[in-house]
Amino acid sequence: MRLFKEVAIVGPGLIGGSIALALKRKKIALRVIAVSRHKKTISLARKLKAIDAGSRDLSAVRNADLIVLAVPVKTILKIADDLRGLLRRDCIVIDVGSSKDKVVSKLQRMFPFYVGAHPLAGSQKQGIQNARAEMFKDSLCVLTPTAKTKQVALDKVSRMWEMLGARVVSLAPKEHDRILAMVSHLPHCVSFALMASVPKGDLKYASSGLRDTTRIAGSDAGLWADIFLTNRRNMLKAIAAFRKELGSVEKSIRGNNRSFLMKRLTRAGGKRRLLTGGGAG
Amino acid sequence: MRLFKEVAIVGPGLIGGSIALALKRKKIALRVIAVSRHKKTISLARKLKAIDAGSRDLSAVRNADLIVLAVPVKTILKIADDLRGLLRRDCIVIDVGSSKDKVVSKLQRMFPFYVGAHPLAGSQKQGIQNARAEMFKDSLCVLTPTAKTKQVALDKVSRMWEMLGARVVSLAPKEHDRILAMVSHLPHCVSFALMASVPKGDLKYASSGLRDTTRIAGSDAGLWADIFLTNRRNMLKAIAAFRKELGSVEKSIRGNNRSFLMKRLTRAGGKRRLLTGGGAG
Repeated sequence: MRLFKEVAIVGPGLIGGSIALALKRKKIALRVIAVSRHKKTISLARKLKAIDAGSRDLSAVRNADLIVLAVPVKTILKIADDLRGLLRRDCIVIDVGSSKDKVVSKLQRMFPFYVGAHPLAGSQKQGIQNARAEMFKDSLCVLTPTAKTKQVALDKVSRMWEMLGARVVSLAPKEHDRILAMVSHLPHCVSFALMASVPKGDLKYASSGLRDTTRIAGSDAGLWADIFLTNRRNMLKAIAAFRKELGSVEKSIRGNNRSFLMKRLTRAGGKRRLLTGGGAG
Repeated sequence: MRLFKEVAIVGPGLIGGSIALALKRKKIALRVIAVSRHKKTISLARKLKAIDAGSRDLSAVRNADLIVLAVPVKTILKIADDLRGLLRRDCIVIDVGSSKDKVVSKLQRMFPFYVGAHPLAGSQKQGIQNARAEMFKDSLCVLTPTAKTKQVALDKVSRMWEMLGARVVSLAPKEHDRILAMVSHLPHCVSFALMASVPKGDLKYASSGLRDTTRIAGSDAGLWADIFLTNRRNMLKAIAAFRKELGSVEKSIRGNNRSFLMKRLTRAGGKRRLLTGGGAG
């Protein structure tokens, strides 16, 4: 079912490109265009039939009834300023950034039909060459409406994510950032630090334990630097909570306290068994 | 090719069971028996054709020309005492424990044909029901010979692991423990602590990032408590190295220092790209 006449994807990378592909394939949009700084990205997006047209010029968004900002969080904040005056007054604007409070605060003041979104999908792989129309199937998409959010925009955006295969839930922006700091941003931070702490010469003895725990350390550094810095307070709290747990384990190793160590490890294992199903991200 | 007449697997779980299956299927041993405290494990091992016979009595090892100790590290140390006087004088003894220095020191004094081994394979899944004859295919097996190790035993044990599909390398026990603390024991410790630090109520928002980083937090708690405690000094050093890295990332987040943060994350990503191929564990 067609929800939009023309969708403009700003940043047709892994996520933006997957949205474009899905909108075209499922005929949710009549026309999909993309704005990218990179000529190569645009030509690849066209070749993959993710878009009908592309431009390096932001003013190409002028006819869109939906604009999707699929660039790193700090770039979203910057591009919002550049978009001012370029888009139709009734244009729905969404972003797909991983931290929401800063972005929502700014964009809802600028764009009357703005809705914050965070699809919990993706991969450490980057770029439109890894995009898939089925990226959001069976994943969770968090929307972050506020009192200012227009119901008509929220309904249409919810509908779109459902048509893309996602289960849609709503969280207040601050709540989103607190939770995501724990379940996504902290694991990334820990994974980066773990990878950095293993001496290069020892890596040839690594097996799946290290490989799995550090898969997401292969994620885009700039993207994650932005997420950490735009969710700074929650990140620092999450790191503190993790440090405390690590300290307990460390203390029980230092003190040769097997029963206390067993208690910590068993408790972690029990929680791990609650973690099943759901999407990537 | 037949290397052994009768192999006794003490602890036919995930690793012991996989060795048993592979020895039978590839006809590396004429006969494989198992010793387990659990009747159910023995009957399942027989049903899976991993063993010819099983017993709950350790004295069943008396005819073996190879004994494989595939129990947690602290149990290896205990069972070694119980084995004294039960085995043939020319019997080769190996263990498959994940920390080696304590085990090798003790067992090489007790058993003249002892060789320490650590197959870098496995999974967070436990028990003979998850055993596979192909478990060691394309994996790395670290042997930890010392000046005391008999060449004839080392050759035969190397041969066996190669026939099981593993690439065999040798490390001194202390060197093994230092390296494995970094590439395996630390990731497990970090994974357990990460899982413990995420509030239960937030888990429904988790996606593949948390799932992958905490897969190994589902590992056997007792097994890992033993590994951490028998490799205590190296563990404490590894945790300290990790803490330092985490501290650098944390500091750059606190200080809003994007360029320093980028440097840390990019460096970790570069290292991650060196990590490819190899076995599980």
